[in-house]
Amino acid sequence: MSARGGIDLGGTKIEAVIVDGDNKVLGSARHPTPTEGGPQAIADQMAAAVKEAAQQAAVEPAMLRGVGVGSPGVVDPDSGAVSTARNLNGWDGTFELAATLQQAIGTKARVGNDVQVATDAEFELGAGKPYKSVLGVFWGTGVGGGLILDGKPWLGRGGAGEIGHVVVKLDGRHCTCGRYGCMEAYAGRAAMEIRARKRVDKGDKTKLFKLMKEHGRTRLTSAVWAKALEHDDKLATKLIDEAVEALGAGVASSVNLLDVEAVIIGGGLGVRFAQPMADRIAKAMQPHLFHDAEPPAVHVAALGDLGGAIGAALLVR
Amino acid sequence: MSARGGIDLGGTKIEAVIVDGDNKVLGSARHPTPTEGGPQAIADQMAAAVKEAAQQAAVEPAMLRGVGVGSPGVVDPDSGAVSTARNLNGWDGTFELAATLQQAIGTKARVGNDVQVATDAEFELGAGKPYKSVLGVFWGTGVGGGLILDGKPWLGRGGAGEIGHVVVKLDGRHCTCGRYGCMEAYAGRAAMEIRARKRVDKGDKTKLFKLMKEHGRTRLTSAVWAKALEHDDKLATKLIDEAVEALGAGVASSVNLLDVEAVIIGGGLGVRFAQPMADRIAKAMQPHLFHDAEPPAVHVAALGDLGGAIGAALLVR
Repeated sequence: MSARGGIDLGGTKIEAVIVDGDNKVLGSARHPTPTEGGPQAIADQMAAAVKEAAQQAAVEPAMLRGVGVGSPGVVDPDSGAVSTARNLNGWDGTFELAATLQQAIGTKARVGNDVQVATDAEFELGAGKPYKSVLGVFWGTGVGGGLILDGKPWLGRGGAGEIGHVVVKLDGRHCTCGRYGCMEAYAGRAAMEIRARKRVDKGDKTKLFKLMKEHGRTRLTSAVWAKALEHDDKLATKLIDEAVEALGAGVASSVNLLDVEAVIIGGGLGVRFAQPMADRIAKAMQPHLFHDAEPPAVHVAALGDLGGAIGAALLVR
Repeated sequence: MSARGGIDLGGTKIEAVIVDGDNKVLGSARHPTPTEGGPQAIADQMAAAVKEAAQQAAVEPAMLRGVGVGSPGVVDPDSGAVSTARNLNGWDGTFELAATLQQAIGTKARVGNDVQVATDAEFELGAGKPYKSVLGVFWGTGVGGGLILDGKPWLGRGGAGEIGHVVVKLDGRHCTCGRYGCMEAYAGRAAMEIRARKRVDKGDKTKLFKLMKEHGRTRLTSAVWAKALEHDDKLATKLIDEAVEALGAGVASSVNLLDVEAVIIGGGLGVRFAQPMADRIAKAMQPHLFHDAEPPAVHVAALGDLGGAIGAALLVR
């Protein structure tokens, strides 16, 4: 059996795919991430999502060659244990995710870092295919980074890729991580929402929260931000402009350090705004690039929302 | 013959060494970098410095296994040509440095990037020996960076390591490179001197320029800065504090991205201020480190001022 499963474990949703030997998607399922019941409830929901995707692909789950997981938090790639995934309910400690899924699905499971598997997928199958060195920038609730250097993932001591916490402004805005001036404090969707609520409290007018309610959401999702920009909403435009400026500086700084061939912009906001926004980010990088005559290519992620799950499936080739 | 030559080509001085098969220094010479006569005059002076060091080592220059050069500017490692070394007199174009030296000295010459060869030297022979991933930070007139990842130099497309031009403050101070908010705009010795002169023009009191004259200098050298700090000079203390703050943010940002095991602080100011300043920089990094429970080791360069020349000699092993 050459079919494999892949799961992208996110703070709000679990995305599962079944792929064939050529990494073609045979089936997929999206479940909300449980917000109670802790890691066990989340693992149960992950297993359920894989089983649903397998049914769609007409594959017996236990017959899968394996299931890969892209997970937030601190991942032990050998044991498949995940620690301190603080965005997830009750996941402050360590949970044996691979072992639990293995038992629930009946095939081997491997766990990797969510951003890194998404970068790997873009590198092997998506926008990064022509290159040997790639910086993946996943612009969503936070801003995560993944690195491919000389054709191989670069993980450092296991904690590399925290591009969201590159400092773009000393003594700058308070970040959701508790620090100051991080790129994510300007560009992360969570930080942008906090900022928008503050501006509204101070009397700014915006359609953001009206659009949120019309979309039946409790958070400013990527779709809500996109709609607000379409409406020329002044506050939304300003906050996105600031985000692009911060991304321009932080990504250019990373390129000054690493001189990669290509930057790939993914994540909820990145995929939603697509190539025109990747072009805007490239333009915002330009004034900060040291070798400005040789900027890297800047592409939007080609695998879209499923990139994380497809990349996770690469873990069990 | 196992003896090799190494030359560190700097904006103010040319440092040459002769090393044996164990990279032990057998002889050394320091010449001022010619400020007229262009690349040919500089190459002539480089050859003279190697010959002087060789004489000290009792070695016939033409019998050296080869001579390596660490050069500023854009280096073509294959041809040994150096382009746009703008800190050097008349070096806006391309000059065949390796070929010229080869003829003048009578043995093969190879050219590498100055900061990268200094990083290689620290990695192989100095403070980086215990590690497989190292970020070299060369704090002098500018701030250069060198990377060792998984035991090998990382050069990107040839232009990696520009850590001095990591943005630490959006819309921040004007950098000597023409951009804004670069780490080097706060920490580079050239930028600090410009800043000091401006503050004096605005009426600030400082002993910096008096000490400069007492040392018979026309520039604020590392020794002058060190003396001013010993005198508790207020302006010097403030400018160094700002430099350390900027280094803390920019180096921590780089560590957040790469998660290297160790940071090595070299360069004129780094070597002069030694380990107590490396410790201060480590402390300034701490509030910006994402994985703050696992900071990298931060060491001063162990090979001191000769590291660049010793690293250059590694090019002709």
